[in-house]
Amino acid sequence: MNYKKVDFNDIEYLISVCGSDRVFYGENINEDYSHDELGGVKRMPEAVVQVLSTEEVSKIMKYAYENNIPVTPRGSGTGLVGASVPIYGGIMIDLSNMNRILELDEENLTLTVEPGVLLMEIAKFVEEHDLFYPPDPGEKTATIGGNINTNAGGMRAVKYGVTRDYVRGLEVVLPNGEVIQVGGKVVKNSSGYSIKDLIVGSEGTLGIVTKAILRLLPLPKKAVSLLIPFKDLESAIETVPKIIKSKSIPTAIEFMQRAAIVAAEEYLGKKFPDNSSDAYLLLTFDGNSREEIEAAYERVAHICLEEGALDVYISDTQERQEAIWSARGAFLEAIKATTTEMDECDVVVPRNKVAEFVKFTHELEDKFNIRIRSFGHAGDGNLHIYVLRDDLDEETWHKKLNDVMKCMYDRARELSGQVSGEHGIGFAKKPYLKESLNEEYINLMRGIKMAFDPKNILNPGKVCQ
Amino acid sequence: MNYKKVDFNDIEYLISVCGSDRVFYGENINEDYSHDELGGVKRMPEAVVQVLSTEEVSKIMKYAYENNIPVTPRGSGTGLVGASVPIYGGIMIDLSNMNRILELDEENLTLTVEPGVLLMEIAKFVEEHDLFYPPDPGEKTATIGGNINTNAGGMRAVKYGVTRDYVRGLEVVLPNGEVIQVGGKVVKNSSGYSIKDLIVGSEGTLGIVTKAILRLLPLPKKAVSLLIPFKDLESAIETVPKIIKSKSIPTAIEFMQRAAIVAAEEYLGKKFPDNSSDAYLLLTFDGNSREEIEAAYERVAHICLEEGALDVYISDTQERQEAIWSARGAFLEAIKATTTEMDECDVVVPRNKVAEFVKFTHELEDKFNIRIRSFGHAGDGNLHIYVLRDDLDEETWHKKLNDVMKCMYDRARELSGQVSGEHGIGFAKKPYLKESLNEEYINLMRGIKMAFDPKNILNPGKVCQ
Repeated sequence: MNYKKVDFNDIEYLISVCGSDRVFYGENINEDYSHDELGGVKRMPEAVVQVLSTEEVSKIMKYAYENNIPVTPRGSGTGLVGASVPIYGGIMIDLSNMNRILELDEENLTLTVEPGVLLMEIAKFVEEHDLFYPPDPGEKTATIGGNINTNAGGMRAVKYGVTRDYVRGLEVVLPNGEVIQVGGKVVKNSSGYSIKDLIVGSEGTLGIVTKAILRLLPLPKKAVSLLIPFKDLESAIETVPKIIKSKSIPTAIEFMQRAAIVAAEEYLGKKFPDNSSDAYLLLTFDGNSREEIEAAYERVAHICLEEGALDVYISDTQERQEAIWSARGAFLEAIKATTTEMDECDVVVPRNKVAEFVKFTHELEDKFNIRIRSFGHAGDGNLHIYVLRDDLDEETWHKKLNDVMKCMYDRARELSGQVSGEHGIGFAKKPYLKESLNEEYINLMRGIKMAFDPKNILNPGKVCQ
Repeated sequence: MNYKKVDFNDIEYLISVCGSDRVFYGENINEDYSHDELGGVKRMPEAVVQVLSTEEVSKIMKYAYENNIPVTPRGSGTGLVGASVPIYGGIMIDLSNMNRILELDEENLTLTVEPGVLLMEIAKFVEEHDLFYPPDPGEKTATIGGNINTNAGGMRAVKYGVTRDYVRGLEVVLPNGEVIQVGGKVVKNSSGYSIKDLIVGSEGTLGIVTKAILRLLPLPKKAVSLLIPFKDLESAIETVPKIIKSKSIPTAIEFMQRAAIVAAEEYLGKKFPDNSSDAYLLLTFDGNSREEIEAAYERVAHICLEEGALDVYISDTQERQEAIWSARGAFLEAIKATTTEMDECDVVVPRNKVAEFVKFTHELEDKFNIRIRSFGHAGDGNLHIYVLRDDLDEETWHKKLNDVMKCMYDRARELSGQVSGEHGIGFAKKPYLKESLNEEYINLMRGIKMAFDPKNILNPGKVCQ
């Protein structure tokens, strides 16, 4: 790519738009801007601008477009696949300070937010109004803008679906700096191609989201969690398709192994209700009455016991549920703390193939003599599998990592799975996406990218490039 | 457009692919293929092929692409905006005989179907397995392929969302004849741009859907409908945002006026439970227990009575509910039977603007001295408004129709609405879409169309062209 380097004139322009306090260049750029949560992909931007308005984003994009400077948008940098790493340098637009909640519309059940609002802030705000924003990725310090760009789904996808299902409208700055509105507060829309749904999950490569209108639901009045120990992971996971088939719909079905629980206990300095078994299912049921929830979970508890569950722990107080779910939420950080470096695989397979896939990762652990930890969303088929470096030297680590990853993505494909359930493709997963989709599909994506960004200046080198 | 005319060689090729029984040309083409349900847009195709397999569709597209012949796909022709009318002639691919239900997967809760399966067939099939396909457009003889292409939502969008939310995967034949798979049985997917969501709602202009994997839910065990008379339409519709704000979520909230009910009674030869009031709300609540449903509808009934409802009729038997909903389902046909010709407007506005919009259509009725009938989805803001020709002469009709339509689409835009909630743009609504979206948006759509169909042979002249 032949991009213009950022020079003093460019910095002067950025300062003329945002003032000198919010423009950083050279040695004043914080090193954090060079990587995301996993850090496997690194590159410093040439300039960072902490924007505060759509108008600023538009002006910067227009300037970058005219001057052929690459631009990378960034939220709070909690991604895992390098989507927010400026691999061609250029300007980084940090949207994390565009973090105002703009409007709660209780007649249309929508919340309008800027992209930098954190997931935990949205959850708290709407709960105070007896409302509910269902998508619930583990990483609560992610921004909503980042979530929209990966279409993350989180824990509650079994019952409620993913981020896409809760985005009603967006304001988007296009690569040429023009601003468009897609969707709106309307519940239905069949007015031309759904550019909204194309932007959702496009990882900042088609446009920069500067405002989002989210769909809310009434807050369910009650929730109960069930922690269910099994003698081993296979029997735990193999129970899940039977739960689905029974026509009960839990809000969440997570699986976890003893190793992840122990790591989380150490990381948080808190005890989990039980860690004596090898494997667990963690289920949540929500609804508006105790009777309704009880009817659902009693049937499911019965199925689990029939399938060999060792016990069923019911958590119906807020404290006990928080204890369990905070451990679940800390798995990624906890596993990371046990090793020197790690990489992840976020495949999604049909729900009845999860057990087979997890069993396969255990075989890889033995075959390649490398530590692999997994947990994830048994109820929606989305696995989070971490390959740990521990004390491997650089060369062995990369060799083993590549071999293990290739085996896993190949197997996912054989099981009719997809490369990513919710973390996206970014930079790190591009080779696997190319192997997973046929050439026609990749060409269509490139054609779409060209329609949005003919000069290829917005987050270049990502997803399909 | 400079397309090749279909000649004898082309017909020979089509016969070589499908046999002579399923290829029609010249005077053997049924006149029905020249128009859709409303018939305002007309043009005969030069050839019709009744396909039976993906392979046939692929071969025909490849041939048409190489020979520069336009192709228009068609389901059962129940559209209202001319999307399936072959406005440049060429080949029509009739998919209505690709109508097999291919697989029910109870472990993944998916149903795999060919595009020609009718909505009513899907509903019946899954109910027999105690399962539920929520999208419920009024026109039950529409094909699922057509529904996917308009992203129709129907009655139950208030609680369950629209067709897009229930499409997990598609098989698509591209304009060049290549076949791609998008999505799959997976619940989550963040693996590149969502071409699935771009195909949904693209009205047969980007690819031909030859297979669909649909998401199912467990069948709710009980449903209760409430028919609620009001003294006038405004007080009926103005109650809806209050229902939404109360945090009860009915499955459906429809509004209807006496004139539509009387027309349906005459059309069906059946009495509606009550037709003495000027306006009605019709609500449904579903769930798994009587208690759960009662708690929800009692609160809503109370709100309605507070807001001036004259009564609340509760229908909790299957027969009574079917009587009411079959009348609702017959509104379009019934209104059509009262006039010589009609055209429709399918705008969607934020839910708290429905009353204002309907009131505006009443003012237009007086101002232009023309009959306008409306009914629709008060709960999701999607209106179905019919302008009736009655005994107007050709010139007056077109003049008045254009004026009234322009007023309605302008008003919808002022209220932050969109041109179409579920019927699509097709051919008839293109001018209104162009006025509604800014130029950048239209350009993006054209760029996307170009990425899929650089020779512009698939359903040309529709949506954004």
